[in-house]
Amino acid sequence: MEGKDQPADAGVVCRLREIFYPRSVAVLGVSDSPQRVGYNLFESLLYGGFAGKVYPVHPRLKTVRGQKVYRSLSEIPEKVDVALIALNERATLAALRECGEKGVKGAVCVAGGYREVGEEGAALEEELRRTARQYGVSLIGPNTLGFINNDADLYATFYPMRLPKGKVSFICQSGGVGLTFMHRAADAGLGLNKWIGVGNRSTFEFSDYLAFLGKDETTAVIGLFIEGTENAGQMVRVAARLEKPVVAYKVGRSEAINYAALTHTGSMAGSYRLYRDIFRQFGLHLVDSLLEMVACLQALATAPLPAGNRIGILTHTAGPSIVAADQLLSRGCTLPPLSEHTLERVRELTGPNPPFVLKNPLDVAGMGFLAEAYGKYLDLVAQDPNVDLVLAIYCQHKNWPFPSPEIIRARKKTGKPIIACYASRSSLCAEDRRLLQEHGIPLFTTPEEAAWAAAALVGWSAELKRRSKK
Amino acid sequence: MEGKDQPADAGVVCRLREIFYPRSVAVLGVSDSPQRVGYNLFESLLYGGFAGKVYPVHPRLKTVRGQKVYRSLSEIPEKVDVALIALNERATLAALRECGEKGVKGAVCVAGGYREVGEEGAALEEELRRTARQYGVSLIGPNTLGFINNDADLYATFYPMRLPKGKVSFICQSGGVGLTFMHRAADAGLGLNKWIGVGNRSTFEFSDYLAFLGKDETTAVIGLFIEGTENAGQMVRVAARLEKPVVAYKVGRSEAINYAALTHTGSMAGSYRLYRDIFRQFGLHLVDSLLEMVACLQALATAPLPAGNRIGILTHTAGPSIVAADQLLSRGCTLPPLSEHTLERVRELTGPNPPFVLKNPLDVAGMGFLAEAYGKYLDLVAQDPNVDLVLAIYCQHKNWPFPSPEIIRARKKTGKPIIACYASRSSLCAEDRRLLQEHGIPLFTTPEEAAWAAAALVGWSAELKRRSKK
Repeated sequence: MEGKDQPADAGVVCRLREIFYPRSVAVLGVSDSPQRVGYNLFESLLYGGFAGKVYPVHPRLKTVRGQKVYRSLSEIPEKVDVALIALNERATLAALRECGEKGVKGAVCVAGGYREVGEEGAALEEELRRTARQYGVSLIGPNTLGFINNDADLYATFYPMRLPKGKVSFICQSGGVGLTFMHRAADAGLGLNKWIGVGNRSTFEFSDYLAFLGKDETTAVIGLFIEGTENAGQMVRVAARLEKPVVAYKVGRSEAINYAALTHTGSMAGSYRLYRDIFRQFGLHLVDSLLEMVACLQALATAPLPAGNRIGILTHTAGPSIVAADQLLSRGCTLPPLSEHTLERVRELTGPNPPFVLKNPLDVAGMGFLAEAYGKYLDLVAQDPNVDLVLAIYCQHKNWPFPSPEIIRARKKTGKPIIACYASRSSLCAEDRRLLQEHGIPLFTTPEEAAWAAAALVGWSAELKRRSKK
Repeated sequence: MEGKDQPADAGVVCRLREIFYPRSVAVLGVSDSPQRVGYNLFESLLYGGFAGKVYPVHPRLKTVRGQKVYRSLSEIPEKVDVALIALNERATLAALRECGEKGVKGAVCVAGGYREVGEEGAALEEELRRTARQYGVSLIGPNTLGFINNDADLYATFYPMRLPKGKVSFICQSGGVGLTFMHRAADAGLGLNKWIGVGNRSTFEFSDYLAFLGKDETTAVIGLFIEGTENAGQMVRVAARLEKPVVAYKVGRSEAINYAALTHTGSMAGSYRLYRDIFRQFGLHLVDSLLEMVACLQALATAPLPAGNRIGILTHTAGPSIVAADQLLSRGCTLPPLSEHTLERVRELTGPNPPFVLKNPLDVAGMGFLAEAYGKYLDLVAQDPNVDLVLAIYCQHKNWPFPSPEIIRARKKTGKPIIACYASRSSLCAEDRRLLQEHGIPLFTTPEEAAWAAAALVGWSAELKRRSKK
């Protein structure tokens, strides 16, 4: 299979597209009990709103949720593009053969019990792989939560849900981390496009999924959670070919972690340092936590790119700007002095002796409490030729509205990326967040997240420049 | 003043108690415009529900928000314990004299324009300090947002708000970082007791506030955000004497940051490494972000302490447990093997060949999807003699309730601390969070936060042991 052994190519992309955009999906091993995986795979399809045909299959059940159940795959009178297999590790193998005979193109094998549990499981997985190859069925998994194509309302996991739509896709070597990501992203107002639980990667490697998402027109930004792979070199080479940013989170700083990862999806986690180095070399953006992952993807999916790494910070309270600066300076960003012209214009606003120090971060203190005044300073910082990206910090106040219209105005006027950081309860800035994001301005509620986001934009901008010079 | 030059003592604690629990508060420089600081200091007192007397003072206004305005402090017929001064840096000095003549015990000076802006400001601040000393008025600030005593419904800041009550108090060298903290804490369901914006620390040092909170019966856990101080040694010595955990966040890893901090509250940030080392030496728990700060305080305010550093993890999805392990192992925790007895009892539940690997983290995969089954494994991990603290990981599911009752049961049965980590949208686990926290179980929604929280409990437990051996 080219997906496993050769560079990702057009064939792989085509086959994955068939799986992610099927016309019909069967659920093998459906159940009428909400406690069971089979029931939930089926409910997930219905709940998610998939517009294609859905066929529940079970040898004895007559109906599930009011829908006719087929006794077997072969009994389904029409073509089936994708099968979701909710059976144990041995029955999955038999079902895969049926899929092959029926001409099913792709199968999601959720069962575990393969190479992640030892030698016997590894042998079984090899048989699964051989069967898939023999019949030309592409596997996702085994040992996976499944996948989501939010662009087609296709939720092929056993966790029924609906998520906001967006341009971010996520490749994940762990269902649980992937779920955590989805929830945190949804809470942050970040829309999801595609989500892939790679499982044991019997057919498709990370590089294949990356190649697929690289060609996927509705995906603009890619997140990647990895425990380990034997094909890291191929993975980063493919990532470096994509014209989309890839944000990567790699666990396994310690040997003990390597052991845990080994018994999870059958991969040694590998040297963390080695991964970190090759990720950097090939232009992937490395993050240290899921919260940083969400912040970086949010920025990359929302904001335009800065021309360089020079950050201008406007605030009315110094502390958060210092916290942000701390993160920015450790992530390749600089805080240049504001230009003399800008300082002159600041003095025009304040009089010749401003009650604050003229520097970057520019902390205008009480002069920036009210949105209108804040907006004037923001215009100046954003227009400064020394500044490539602006971080706008403001604290929620019961009687002083957020300076969101002013931030949007500065964004439009200068064309430069602006990241907003509001010290605020989530509920109190939800409406402003929606408004700002509509205008290409990501909003965060801690200075660290805002800085991580800025660094991701700066990093991707630098990477594109680096590539264009090659 | 003993607060500045000598070890914190009973006098300082008494004076701060007078300020934090006053019977009457005056607002000097009140305004009838919601755009002004003076208006908002006054509204903050009313909105917060302070039960003592509140006197607005302004030379010309007759009423504000329907309440009589006094023309001057001396016109107020009764005693005034605390004055909130909403005037510029020079008028503040004059007002402080009036406070002294009236016998006011404490004054909050919100104005900036003192030593943080240069030599002239420094001279003015020295005069402010001298005046305070001369009249025996204690200052909070200048250059501060103010303070909050949520225990007395006293919100003495110009950001009107109400926050959930709790046992956590926060000392902050930045109003904006302090506001960020409050909002993030409130979103996390973490209740606040006292909040102090130290400003330029003209009267009271960090060590004084620490001594005060150490004696404060309603404060159980202390958070500290610091940019820099000339009296770091005294600060950590006092912190080490308290019988309460102190979680510290120090910015300033770079020289550029030091410069920014210098022009903020007039303190060099100092060597980050030096701070880190003395914080560790004196048993403060150092964190790397505000999100970690909130997680650690939440754990320390909610959960009992573990007997040691041995963490047992139960999950039904490996990835989050590996992410958590990564953080735990880098923060002084261990993941011991489960005892033979525990493994034997796990086999009793699964049969002799469990479909998962018997290790720690224990990933029971599909066997742990349903709360009842999850609870049985949780009991075993929690009862394991090798385990001091349990991390219980679970993913939100539309049809499978969270195992919260089971986690509470295990907590009660074993007496050991348990930290819950639910992959979930905040809104979907809000009710479970309330329930779990009532039973001493902090809940987080990312594995990193859960691990940070566990490490804080382990760290404080180890510190108490270390002290008892001295």
